[in-house]
Amino acid sequence: MLAEIIAVGSELLTPFRQDTNSLFLTESLNGVGVTVAFKTIVGDREAHIAQAITVALGRCDLVFLMGGLGPTADDLTREAVAAALGIRLKRDGDVLAALYKRFAERRASMPSNNTRQAEILEGAEVLPNPHGTAPGQWLDIVFGGHRKLLVLLPGPPRELKPMMTEECLPRLREALPPRAIARRVLKIAMLGESDVDARIAPIYGRFSDVETTILAKPGEIEVHLLCSKAILEVAQGRVNELASRIEEEMEDAIYSSQGEALEEIVLYYLQMRGATLAVAESCTGGLLSERLTRVSGSSRAFQGGAVVYSNELKTQLADVPEELIEEHGAVSRDVAEALAHGVRRRASATIGVGITGIAGPSGGTEEKPVGTVYIGIADGKEQTVVERRFRGDRERIRYLATQQALDMLRRKLM
Amino acid sequence: MLAEIIAVGSELLTPFRQDTNSLFLTESLNGVGVTVAFKTIVGDREAHIAQAITVALGRCDLVFLMGGLGPTADDLTREAVAAALGIRLKRDGDVLAALYKRFAERRASMPSNNTRQAEILEGAEVLPNPHGTAPGQWLDIVFGGHRKLLVLLPGPPRELKPMMTEECLPRLREALPPRAIARRVLKIAMLGESDVDARIAPIYGRFSDVETTILAKPGEIEVHLLCSKAILEVAQGRVNELASRIEEEMEDAIYSSQGEALEEIVLYYLQMRGATLAVAESCTGGLLSERLTRVSGSSRAFQGGAVVYSNELKTQLADVPEELIEEHGAVSRDVAEALAHGVRRRASATIGVGITGIAGPSGGTEEKPVGTVYIGIADGKEQTVVERRFRGDRERIRYLATQQALDMLRRKLM
Repeated sequence: MLAEIIAVGSELLTPFRQDTNSLFLTESLNGVGVTVAFKTIVGDREAHIAQAITVALGRCDLVFLMGGLGPTADDLTREAVAAALGIRLKRDGDVLAALYKRFAERRASMPSNNTRQAEILEGAEVLPNPHGTAPGQWLDIVFGGHRKLLVLLPGPPRELKPMMTEECLPRLREALPPRAIARRVLKIAMLGESDVDARIAPIYGRFSDVETTILAKPGEIEVHLLCSKAILEVAQGRVNELASRIEEEMEDAIYSSQGEALEEIVLYYLQMRGATLAVAESCTGGLLSERLTRVSGSSRAFQGGAVVYSNELKTQLADVPEELIEEHGAVSRDVAEALAHGVRRRASATIGVGITGIAGPSGGTEEKPVGTVYIGIADGKEQTVVERRFRGDRERIRYLATQQALDMLRRKLM
Repeated sequence: MLAEIIAVGSELLTPFRQDTNSLFLTESLNGVGVTVAFKTIVGDREAHIAQAITVALGRCDLVFLMGGLGPTADDLTREAVAAALGIRLKRDGDVLAALYKRFAERRASMPSNNTRQAEILEGAEVLPNPHGTAPGQWLDIVFGGHRKLLVLLPGPPRELKPMMTEECLPRLREALPPRAIARRVLKIAMLGESDVDARIAPIYGRFSDVETTILAKPGEIEVHLLCSKAILEVAQGRVNELASRIEEEMEDAIYSSQGEALEEIVLYYLQMRGATLAVAESCTGGLLSERLTRVSGSSRAFQGGAVVYSNELKTQLADVPEELIEEHGAVSRDVAEALAHGVRRRASATIGVGITGIAGPSGGTEEKPVGTVYIGIADGKEQTVVERRFRGDRERIRYLATQQALDMLRRKLM
């Protein structure tokens, strides 16, 4: 079954705002076996919205409209549907009463504008909206001789998402043939997309009933597996079987098979081993700490560290000897190692990490071009330092340096 | 003049990938006086693409197709245009020769697939692509009795952007009536959207020839001003006049009037005063350092700092007395101040900043709920500490804490 998603709002046609609701909607729809075939974005003009609706109903069985259900004059989705289908809008007494009640509970008087939100399309089912004033509407119609579903959802994500999950998905499951969907996401750090694909394509090629999507992000490849069957156990079995085969091929390159982030995995391993971590960052300027502390509960294993942008702070906060910096330069194998040792001792941590490099765009030399990064890891018994030459802009080089450090930590702790 | 942008690619209809090229295209088109009225996203199916083209030509004068110009079997934009318009594709000798030359220069033999990229639509002008193998195509046609422009662009941003700027915009400027566009972006930190709008709406309401767009981001409001006139000086004059009026009303709440980021402004003020900065972060976990070091050249004023997630590190790296933490708690006014002093002394910096708080989702108490953040600033002569209660999730609370710290720094340095 094919669906079209129409996002309504002039702000979505500026360079500043983007429809992101449709990603959530697509995921929800895929989960009940519906494929999104078109997305359309249209401004707050009744004729344009009505035209988009007519086009969508002509090519898809299921049409979702998002936005344009507010109380103001530029909220025109209701009127546009009425015009496109040649049906009437009627003020619904129950919806109106609920609106008055909502305002009364907030000790506010309802602006007269808001009564527009009680206007319901002839034949539509009202979808209650506990998180806002705009109810959704569900229309089961015949258009061009075919049965079509047309759904109106409010634009704000915190209203749209629960309405989709709680009101629309149950109705869709009832309307559609039963399907059970199993999914799994395998994640791989610091390998290239073509390398990964060359190794796993012969494997997933033999699983024609599992949809395999490879997504390349900076320093990371995600392999999404999706299988749809009548029975959940069968779908799950196929996904798990393919996942195991890929895991066999890629061995320890796969760091997560349930969708966890790399920083979560590192923190998990640290806690499992009762180990603690401290980091000293130069070129990454705090990004590694920031990524680790995004995870709630990270304080159980992550103690903190030093952002040693200046040479003085490398000495002052991580005990890197001045002479070492003079002799080898701040961006060197030796300084990375000294940073790891120094911050580890300072924090009395099990493991210390040191990063130093040239993030660019300036500061590169022939010997050490922009992108040169040294990463040291020390645990008091042994130390490792790697040298990498990352390509890309400042942001990418910094990100890849933290990704490399996290992957080194993961492999050390595994 | 109305335009429609059609993004082609099945990956854009998954929950994982989003069209972002259209934001760039919209900005470019607005700059020559063209309004984007519709955006359509369609998968790699010839019939669907052809249908989208027909619909677009029926409602807009200018249609941009992005993507689907690659060499593989699922790159079908060329064929879809031919089908929609009933015209033929012809292999172009010059384009083919350029393709062979490109591969030869890279000492690679050209896969036979790539010859498809030399197929040019009858009557189309070839738009050269120095950054990839897919040339663009420019069609000036009559459709339904009206003159229409249909433009085919490659999907990868690093190919699309220069082609738009270097090939399409000059052609559009020639085809369209001359327009001069002046723009300006004013940025305001740590005020609410409705507060800002209430104060400036009466002002921009009197400038009906300047388009004013207010964008709310976490901890930041952007006011975009755009004016289009026949003469650039006139447009610029109107934008500048409105900007001055708004600046008068908002006074020092506006931190940037040329689009600079808040961290850039802070670093600029620091350098202007020959001052240096060091920061000690607890709940923000390195985010403040990371934001400052995103700016290339930040090392001239930013020395670094400490991520003092554990209490031990608060003492070890920023000299916060253990007793102080015991007495007042790690999240307290006193500890924020001590962090600022301590890191300032350690780094021998002009100014020190200390941040401590509860980013959540756990860790809140009745007295200090999630979102409570203390920010201290010290310069050796005076110190300030503010307490804030931010609302939102962990990510938002951390971001707002750094935004507040940067805005305090800015006001101190102004």
